[in-house]
Amino acid sequence: MPIRVTVWGENVHEHKHQLVRDIYPDGMHACIAAALNRDPGIKARCATLQEPEHGLTDAVLDETDVLTWWGHAAHGQVEDAIAERVQQRVLKGMGLIVLHSGHHSKVFKRLMGHNCDLSWREAGEKERVWVACPGHPIAAGIDRFFELPHEEMYGEPFGVPEPLETVFISWFQGGEVFRSGLTYRRGAGKIFYFRPGHETYPTYHNPTVQQVLRNAVKWAVPEQRFGWGCPHVPADKAPEPIGSTGGSVH
Amino acid sequence: MPIRVTVWGENVHEHKHQLVRDIYPDGMHACIAAALNRDPGIKARCATLQEPEHGLTDAVLDETDVLTWWGHAAHGQVEDAIAERVQQRVLKGMGLIVLHSGHHSKVFKRLMGHNCDLSWREAGEKERVWVACPGHPIAAGIDRFFELPHEEMYGEPFGVPEPLETVFISWFQGGEVFRSGLTYRRGAGKIFYFRPGHETYPTYHNPTVQQVLRNAVKWAVPEQRFGWGCPHVPADKAPEPIGSTGGSVH
Amino acid sequence: MPIRVTVWGENVHEHKHQLVRDIYPDGMHACIAAALNRDPGIKARCATLQEPEHGLTDAVLDETDVLTWWGHAAHGQVEDAIAERVQQRVLKGMGLIVLHSGHHSKVFKRLMGHNCDLSWREAGEKERVWVACPGHPIAAGIDRFFELPHEEMYGEPFGVPEPLETVFISWFQGGEVFRSGLTYRRGAGKIFYFRPGHETYPTYHNPTVQQVLRNAVKWAVPEQRFGWGCPHVPADKAPEPIGSTGGSVH
Amino acid sequence: MPIRVTVWGENVHEHKHQLVRDIYPDGMHACIAAALNRDPGIKARCATLQEPEHGLTDAVLDETDVLTWWGHAAHGQVEDAIAERVQQRVLKGMGLIVLHSGHHSKVFKRLMGHNCDLSWREAGEKERVWVACPGHPIAAGIDRFFELPHEEMYGEPFGVPEPLETVFISWFQGGEVFRSGLTYRRGAGKIFYFRPGHETYPTYHNPTVQQVLRNAVKWAVPEQRFGWGCPHVPADKAPEPIGSTGGSVH
Repeated sequence: MPIRVTVWGENVHEHKHQLVRDIYPDGMHACIAAALNRDPGIKARCATLQEPEHGLTDAVLDETDVLTWWGHAAHGQVEDAIAERVQQRVLKGMGLIVLHSGHHSKVFKRLMGHNCDLSWREAGEKERVWVACPGHPIAAGIDRFFELPHEEMYGEPFGVPEPLETVFISWFQGGEVFRSGLTYRRGAGKIFYFRPGHETYPTYHNPTVQQVLRNAVKWAVPEQRFGWGCPHVPADKAPEPIGSTGGSVH
Repeated sequence: MPIRVTVWGENVHEHKHQLVRDIYPDGMHACIAAALNRDPGIKARCATLQEPEHGLTDAVLDETDVLTWWGHAAHGQVEDAIAERVQQRVLKGMGLIVLHSGHHSKVFKRLMGHNCDLSWREAGEKERVWVACPGHPIAAGIDRFFELPHEEMYGEPFGVPEPLETVFISWFQGGEVFRSGLTYRRGAGKIFYFRPGHETYPTYHNPTVQQVLRNAVKWAVPEQRFGWGCPHVPADKAPEPIGSTGGSVH
Repeated sequence: MPIRVTVWGENVHEHKHQLVRDIYPDGMHACIAAALNRDPGIKARCATLQEPEHGLTDAVLDETDVLTWWGHAAHGQVEDAIAERVQQRVLKGMGLIVLHSGHHSKVFKRLMGHNCDLSWREAGEKERVWVACPGHPIAAGIDRFFELPHEEMYGEPFGVPEPLETVFISWFQGGEVFRSGLTYRRGAGKIFYFRPGHETYPTYHNPTVQQVLRNAVKWAVPEQRFGWGCPHVPADKAPEPIGSTGGSVH
Repeated sequence: MPIRVTVWGENVHEHKHQLVRDIYPDGMHACIAAALNRDPGIKARCATLQEPEHGLTDAVLDETDVLTWWGHAAHGQVEDAIAERVQQRVLKGMGLIVLHSGHHSKVFKRLMGHNCDLSWREAGEKERVWVACPGHPIAAGIDRFFELPHEEMYGEPFGVPEPLETVFISWFQGGEVFRSGLTYRRGAGKIFYFRPGHETYPTYHNPTVQQVLRNAVKWAVPEQRFGWGCPHVPADKAPEPIGSTGGSVH
């Protein structure tokens, strides 16, 4: 069975800015979904902010193995209840790939427990993305680095917890560096943050970026689902026989 | 200058349950603060849920190096704005020590990005707390383990991110295990979760527990404060001279 | 193509002690290999200390995706050159599963950079292994815990670096705890340490233990191989055009 | 009592190359020790390869809180027994600061369990060192970055385990990036790797580099010493009363 991916797109810039529409006539999400669907082992569909429940109903998430998230201009319009729902799904096992300006999304900030701040510059400078964790499946097929001729700059410090693995680190022409590919495990879910993807450059048309996205989806597939909770294990059900001592406020 | 600690107490059980009041006549927070103040290098005061802004005004937090947090019955009564304020203070450098049932507090869940679930049993069983990270300053003065004759059981899996350091692991008489002392760095702030401390047992009167609390406060002292943000670095202020290419939606 | 596993056995106790031979008439390694081969996706063969190059020639390792390691009485007889060879293979991508008393093997100590010390007791007591990282593929198919009626005790502190993931934690009848399942990434290789498996108890006949071994093999399969090295990138091959300034001792 | 530091210098280039002698007339180690001694809370002395036991006798290490290590041309001349001795001291609590080409020292490779490979270029290019972990005590007093006008380039991938904290990341004029400041805990000891310091440039005369060295020494001070070992806990000394079941090969 192919990996079921939901590509979430904020879908705002595409309607407001001719510049973005020229690069992504069907929306950034459509470009990303098409890149994923080039792999027969992946079946990607889209969901956008403007749909009811932002397209992320329980029915949709029930059939989602991996969710990708791109947002920028309208983070505040994402309903808290939906951000909470996505967070809980990740903890239970759904993979999550957060793209570029999604660093400031409600979903990512909730899962990181952090502000996810960074410095930035929109000057169309060169970005060179280095592989820092060779052998990692997300870097499969990539040589020592790849280049993007024009990208927005994101600079350290990146306000996130230390990752499980630092897969990519970027060099920017203007003099900054940034940890561009970071993995996390949260509960039963795997999370990958991937930096490139500013809306005014054709980054998601880049074949290497598309390869990273496909690699990341395969890496993030749920290994096992787990339903959390706070089970009460009463004294007479304890693994070892015990009595009960002391009082209780319950 | 002594370390300035604010001991936050939910202060609910003490007023509702004679059992708790008998053990902690001035409140659990008062007992914890007194234990800390036994060290001349620490100056602890209390704040409680019932005070305006839960006693955690900006003025109070301006003078707080380390905050300790005990809550259980009234997590939901903590205002979101105050939980958010505490989270941001931690990211900027304030130390945080989360105690026992504080695992489900808004503050801890926000900073962990997790549900912080666990299994539990209130049977007054024996807990043996093992040092898993010998040489760690939070375990200073503790031999291979210490015992608490009566405690609530918390069992794995503990729904938190993998820690920086696993300082303590508990053995329970009823057959469970639990990672009882975990460290995290979040931004410029250091966080320690410490499991023991159920309200119906005299845990915070235990000298070893008090030693751990003092050790943890000293470990969590801010090393440096840092004010986060998302600084824009325009092209003409880039560290390296660059021009500007491509369009912008700004 | 099935996963190619080499099961390395020290193969000493089986020849010296009738007790061990009674439990593992063909050797512990044969029992482990048979357990792995029960999965059609795995093809396991054995190698032992007594063979030339301990059975771990370059030719054998060229055809090994995952190596499992059990040793106890003869760690010192493993040649340094072979331990070094295995270490380098792991860094290049070969998976490694270290079993029980293999904690003190040259291979594991080299890869951990640590002494891998622990406390121990051979009293045939009960061990209860808890899942601390639910959803992890190595814990697939296991409920909240599994029990071994008779095992050697290993106790904290375990002298290893903090792991990537704490998959299992054990409770022992005699009062100790131990982190029984730990994952590491070293270079392109994945490493799993799994505690159970004392030679005087039939642990590797246990169906759940066998399931963990199969799960671990599948998890440790190399994702990508990587040949390390220290490439010199001369100034005229730098990604960005630069000159050369200052002297050199080369 | 001041922090007792032993500054270890390989002390080879200084005698072979006029270029290095011109920059460091008393040796690189003397320059580093002087920089540390500028802080009244630190008392640094030197030890070199050419001394008996490389100047690292048990008596010297008994009085060493933190050891710094610079080597390059003569890693192979360091006796294995001394490298082993240093490793064991670190596990017991001694702080270790590994400098620049010390990445390939026996001591560092043993403690990392890795090859510590990297790519390199000696072109005197500009290095800009960014703070990636603001608020960390090793970065105290440093703004967002500092620059070294001429340095050797080290490039990713750096063959080391994922660190506890990524304190610095370097940008190089020639287009590479490198994780230049990494922290580790190994046993009771704290380890800091710091990249800058090529012998043909006056890097250790740089005031910011000297500040980082002083910061790192203070951070690496042993918190508590711990003597490892494998204590046998016989059945009649178990924390919980148990009998003994099953056989033994002992």
